[in-house]
Amino acid sequence: MRTPPCLLSLTLDSAVHNLSNITDLSPLPDHILIELFLRTLRAGKLTERVLKLFIATGKDEVFSLIQALNIQVTVTPVLPTRALRPDLTSFMNEWRTIFSRFHLIIVKDPDLKEELKIPEGFNLDVYKKPDIDRVVGTSTSTIFSGYSCRYFGYLVSRKKYIISVDDDCYPAKDNKGILVDAVAQHITNLTTPATPFFFNTLYDPFTEGADFVRGYPFSLRSGVQCALSCGLWLNLADYDAPTQALKAEERNSRYVDAVLTVPARTLMPISGINIAFNREVIGPALLPSLRLGGEGKFRWETMEDIWSGMCVKVVCDHLGLGVKTGMPYVWRNDRGDAIASLRKEWEGVKLMEEVVPFFQSVRLSGEATTTEDCVAEVANVVKEQLGSKDPMFARAAKAMVDWVKLWKSVGYSTSSPGA
Amino acid sequence: MRTPPCLLSLTLDSAVHNLSNITDLSPLPDHILIELFLRTLRAGKLTERVLKLFIATGKDEVFSLIQALNIQVTVTPVLPTRALRPDLTSFMNEWRTIFSRFHLIIVKDPDLKEELKIPEGFNLDVYKKPDIDRVVGTSTSTIFSGYSCRYFGYLVSRKKYIISVDDDCYPAKDNKGILVDAVAQHITNLTTPATPFFFNTLYDPFTEGADFVRGYPFSLRSGVQCALSCGLWLNLADYDAPTQALKAEERNSRYVDAVLTVPARTLMPISGINIAFNREVIGPALLPSLRLGGEGKFRWETMEDIWSGMCVKVVCDHLGLGVKTGMPYVWRNDRGDAIASLRKEWEGVKLMEEVVPFFQSVRLSGEATTTEDCVAEVANVVKEQLGSKDPMFARAAKAMVDWVKLWKSVGYSTSSPGA
Repeated sequence: MRTPPCLLSLTLDSAVHNLSNITDLSPLPDHILIELFLRTLRAGKLTERVLKLFIATGKDEVFSLIQALNIQVTVTPVLPTRALRPDLTSFMNEWRTIFSRFHLIIVKDPDLKEELKIPEGFNLDVYKKPDIDRVVGTSTSTIFSGYSCRYFGYLVSRKKYIISVDDDCYPAKDNKGILVDAVAQHITNLTTPATPFFFNTLYDPFTEGADFVRGYPFSLRSGVQCALSCGLWLNLADYDAPTQALKAEERNSRYVDAVLTVPARTLMPISGINIAFNREVIGPALLPSLRLGGEGKFRWETMEDIWSGMCVKVVCDHLGLGVKTGMPYVWRNDRGDAIASLRKEWEGVKLMEEVVPFFQSVRLSGEATTTEDCVAEVANVVKEQLGSKDPMFARAAKAMVDWVKLWKSVGYSTSSPGA
Repeated sequence: MRTPPCLLSLTLDSAVHNLSNITDLSPLPDHILIELFLRTLRAGKLTERVLKLFIATGKDEVFSLIQALNIQVTVTPVLPTRALRPDLTSFMNEWRTIFSRFHLIIVKDPDLKEELKIPEGFNLDVYKKPDIDRVVGTSTSTIFSGYSCRYFGYLVSRKKYIISVDDDCYPAKDNKGILVDAVAQHITNLTTPATPFFFNTLYDPFTEGADFVRGYPFSLRSGVQCALSCGLWLNLADYDAPTQALKAEERNSRYVDAVLTVPARTLMPISGINIAFNREVIGPALLPSLRLGGEGKFRWETMEDIWSGMCVKVVCDHLGLGVKTGMPYVWRNDRGDAIASLRKEWEGVKLMEEVVPFFQSVRLSGEATTTEDCVAEVANVVKEQLGSKDPMFARAAKAMVDWVKLWKSVGYSTSSPGA
């Protein structure tokens, strides 16, 4: 059972607003200090001075939180079809107040010829084709083309939490017009428990002002570790090409103020546009493996993230980890011609009719106790059950096995950033 | 695939606003007529004149919709512990603009001695103890005491859709301050398909402005019939007594603008405070059966709705029907002393530790093809697996079997309203 928030909550809010007058935080009990830290972060008030204030407490919890929060944002600058795309100036500037607090990894789509244009003032590493070739070898580097370049960032990062946002997304505003700190919300999602074994009708019980409703078993209220946080999109929703073409003028304006745990054994279409995960527990399950024959450079021409998402959900269910969906939103900008993509997209659309029943039926063995084991088992079943239906599946199975090997050799070793 | 809403949507909105100038709706195609009807209802503009306009089209679809929408609202005036409770004046007046459009059933808690006070201007039937005794017999009428009196209304109603709201709830306001028409929202939830077999990250794809996201299999997009719509509560959330006692000052102010299908095989704590269902398909599964030993007259002292909810969800999953949760909200008012209820409530809290794993494991046979069959099968398994653990479960199993018999003899025959 958690602490009643009323008076404590007001005190903490007041402290956040008056941080400039506070010179010593060390008298605070640990759990209040941590809560104050998270609220400060959420309120966008974690300046260098304030950070030093927290560090000065000398508390272990603060250090591990700061280390954990030293997030890498993997940004995927793709879309070589537009001359403007390699220019990340407006993208980075829109995110500046949020991203400038963290270390960033930018992976350049190896197919993109133009030079990247990135504004000053960020702490970042950029990985380009030569860097990728050096780390994984020339023959392997092709798996990172297009949107899949982000997986290279997942591989070489050494941080606990990874947040990944497509480069056509800007920060969104909430119902009150306040800029959403997507990083802080993802971190909250990942650092509070998930509840996959029973549905809570008031959504995430760990959100402030919410709780478990009457009838929710007390034995399930401690929840499980959350491994993946799936954010959403305002303005341009993540539709497939047919829906996009049919509803060319439709924009998503519904800001749903909720986060929820996707129940165990329930599959969902996980989008790679705006996600975050705990790399330590689930890292190797986010992988580039399924590539459509006629895959293009628009989101709706790809299925790599949907496939990877089905895989990661099955692994989370097997390992007793949670997956959340909902906030944070990002503002997704229009681009591309959905009608022109229609021919390609039908391949992905047909694919799901095979893939969903398959993943719904997959059950992993008791011997699969690590994420790597689980991915390898899924790959085997893909090969056995889907391999003969379409060579694309056989290739995906092989790519999954290769990915686990790559993760074992590169994913755990010391990072070697390019420049 | 559905029609793109842009231009059509604007036209329909404009038509709703200009209904007073329209004298003939018959040239409209059927699906547009139905959409216009639903929007008119949602906008609170379905006056008698407008209703006649729709009837004048002579379209079958309109007739069945009007018949379907002739909803009965079952209101449960309980709580004999407070002198003011039998007075429904403010409750009915708060709901007047919404409830006055429908036929109401009010069932008076048979334990309540005081006379009910109900304001004028409603189309309603009131059922009191003598009416209940006459319909089901004196020995059976005890099952309808306390909050369970609402089940008598479910039994004697002959309408397709039933909406049930506790009498301490008023209409809520949405994020924009607009009064929520809970009846219209419940009807929308029940008359649009549910999608229990795959999770849609943008919530209900049948909400205006939403759709299925990329990766959602097309074969699952037609969905299934929705049998149950579970609404939520602003102000006083539906917590158990320990949570309520611990968070005495907490109020739910988070209006989450969403409806979603609870996935198949996922259980949830269904509250009876604000629900709606399709009586024709699932009626007999909403039943009064579990009664705690020390059950009191506060919501948090009861588990009848939680038990009934687990039963109805298992039946829906077996029959391929959907359950939605989310909007509409009602504004729930404070009442009762949670701390005084704590001793009683622990019984219910402990109970869920047995009940949840039980219902998660129940699988019905292929022979159970009707709701009545399903309830009878669940009752058998309850008796076998839980009956020896606590006499309360054995009594619940018997009550379920009795309820199916009662439904067969009374639930289908002609209604006999009391006065």
